[in-house]
Amino acid sequence: MAKRTLLSFSPQIKVIDATLRDGGLVNNFYFQDDFVKKLYQMNLQAGVDYMEFGYKASKEIFDKTKFGKWKFCDEKDIRDIVGDNNTDLKIAVMADVGRTDVEKDIIPKDESVIDMVRVASYINTIPAAIDMVEDCAKKGYETTVNIMAISHANDSDLEEALELIGNSSADGVYLVDSYGSLYPEQIRRLSDKYLNMAAKYGKFVGIHAHNNQQLAFANTIDAVACGVNYLDATVNSLGRGAGNCPLELLLGFLKNPKYKLHAVLKFIEEEMLKLKESGLVWGYDIPYLITGVLDRHPSGAIDCIKKERKDYANIYLELMGLE
Amino acid sequence: MAKRTLLSFSPQIKVIDATLRDGGLVNNFYFQDDFVKKLYQMNLQAGVDYMEFGYKASKEIFDKTKFGKWKFCDEKDIRDIVGDNNTDLKIAVMADVGRTDVEKDIIPKDESVIDMVRVASYINTIPAAIDMVEDCAKKGYETTVNIMAISHANDSDLEEALELIGNSSADGVYLVDSYGSLYPEQIRRLSDKYLNMAAKYGKFVGIHAHNNQQLAFANTIDAVACGVNYLDATVNSLGRGAGNCPLELLLGFLKNPKYKLHAVLKFIEEEMLKLKESGLVWGYDIPYLITGVLDRHPSGAIDCIKKERKDYANIYLELMGLE
Repeated sequence: MAKRTLLSFSPQIKVIDATLRDGGLVNNFYFQDDFVKKLYQMNLQAGVDYMEFGYKASKEIFDKTKFGKWKFCDEKDIRDIVGDNNTDLKIAVMADVGRTDVEKDIIPKDESVIDMVRVASYINTIPAAIDMVEDCAKKGYETTVNIMAISHANDSDLEEALELIGNSSADGVYLVDSYGSLYPEQIRRLSDKYLNMAAKYGKFVGIHAHNNQQLAFANTIDAVACGVNYLDATVNSLGRGAGNCPLELLLGFLKNPKYKLHAVLKFIEEEMLKLKESGLVWGYDIPYLITGVLDRHPSGAIDCIKKERKDYANIYLELMGLE
Repeated sequence: MAKRTLLSFSPQIKVIDATLRDGGLVNNFYFQDDFVKKLYQMNLQAGVDYMEFGYKASKEIFDKTKFGKWKFCDEKDIRDIVGDNNTDLKIAVMADVGRTDVEKDIIPKDESVIDMVRVASYINTIPAAIDMVEDCAKKGYETTVNIMAISHANDSDLEEALELIGNSSADGVYLVDSYGSLYPEQIRRLSDKYLNMAAKYGKFVGIHAHNNQQLAFANTIDAVACGVNYLDATVNSLGRGAGNCPLELLLGFLKNPKYKLHAVLKFIEEEMLKLKESGLVWGYDIPYLITGVLDRHPSGAIDCIKKERKDYANIYLELMGLE
């Protein structure tokens, strides 16, 4: 395999559009069907490799009257959008440890239009994540383990977790910067650690970055420079808090001619501007910088944004715990 | 000297607040005196190392009735803000090749409150830049050459330019990503090239980044990781087009305890929000992504933003020259 350069591209690189899944955390998964259909069409046109529709949350744990359908991703609901999906775009869903009943809710792959199940786990629940991966792999799905909040994991725990995942049926493992607190130097160090395990066990490595410090895109492409191949992005950064790596910046960077930036720009002007005008609030703002710098969960910042607080200096002192 | 790590810091690192100078390109240098005084106070409190007040533009070339005073940076105007500036904060001004008459307009250092003159030049006017540097150095100022639009320079021209600057009296040389088109991999490659020259001739290296692809902060701190020490930033990114490396993100990253993020956050809530509300428009937006990806001057994007155009897909085709 030829080494990727800035002018060439690696065909191993895959782009995952996580707009519905991470964006669903902003609007409780209440997307219009028309929006979802157009997003699916956009992903086909833009050459995106995977579209993540949402979570496979358990209806015994979550009240289905309080969320839009993409919190649960029923087979029928996905098929209403994609039919049999006879396309090159693969379909992904996310399954959270402790919030998903994979044995019950994930049907055999040959009956499903879903291609990949991504299991999201904190580092202290990796064995539960691997149980879920094994169930899904046995049913025929591609699987990943997405280790969240990696900035709070220590090196020896991470090494042990990577070994456990290495020995599992998971096809890939994700570096997830949930708090948007990691700097490129740290991303490169973590990428190398993940990639060493991946090389040993024949897995791929992915990255899911958040934009709290305006680093989601930079961290994603720095991970690419290290050899990370599965890249999460969302249109216009739509996602929890400060949002994600913007798909439009990522496709502008990747040199594989199959990726078409034009399709994403068209979707932004036709659909995302409406979403902003409807009052949905997401994306980089000063309170996220503060939780990012402090390496904290963004919930405190999200709360400030909801209250439209602009007393940034006080917010900083409060979140540091000094007031 | 101990090597800088993510937890330690290098005392060689200097932060330059370019808010007035690059921000002046947004409002034709019409800042209220009260704003400038508060910005000066903020820089003192925040531990910033240099404050750039504006340009030393020639009044024979530019009509002084059409610009605010910081286009010209008269000695008296700076002294009205800083008095004799008996502080640790140094004062910088910028002198553009072909737009500044340094012989006439730059007085001897011992009569001036200015500490540093930064000469901005395209790569094809380096000899003129060096003439200006020599004049200013002889008068007693710290000097730099800021090579603009470096993404359009080829390697052999750049090497020659760096040699010329290396042999001049300039104290430092700047890597300036005028079009916001450079990716971190390119910044690291260019930083190494600059730093090799710098080591040979005993100069320092600086970086001035733009945020067209949300990479201004990332590129700045990746340059730091390479050994670049002079870092330009502006409060809240205020600057031409997509703006600059945000000072608040940069101070959050740097570990030198003399830098105080709190002071910048206070200034943002008290002064920058008013500036936004007054109708001044700057900062990342989709048209800048497009000129950034295409490695073009941002003027086409600035024009689209002024006209409030949102037909991003058409803008993309137009700026590519296909329509």
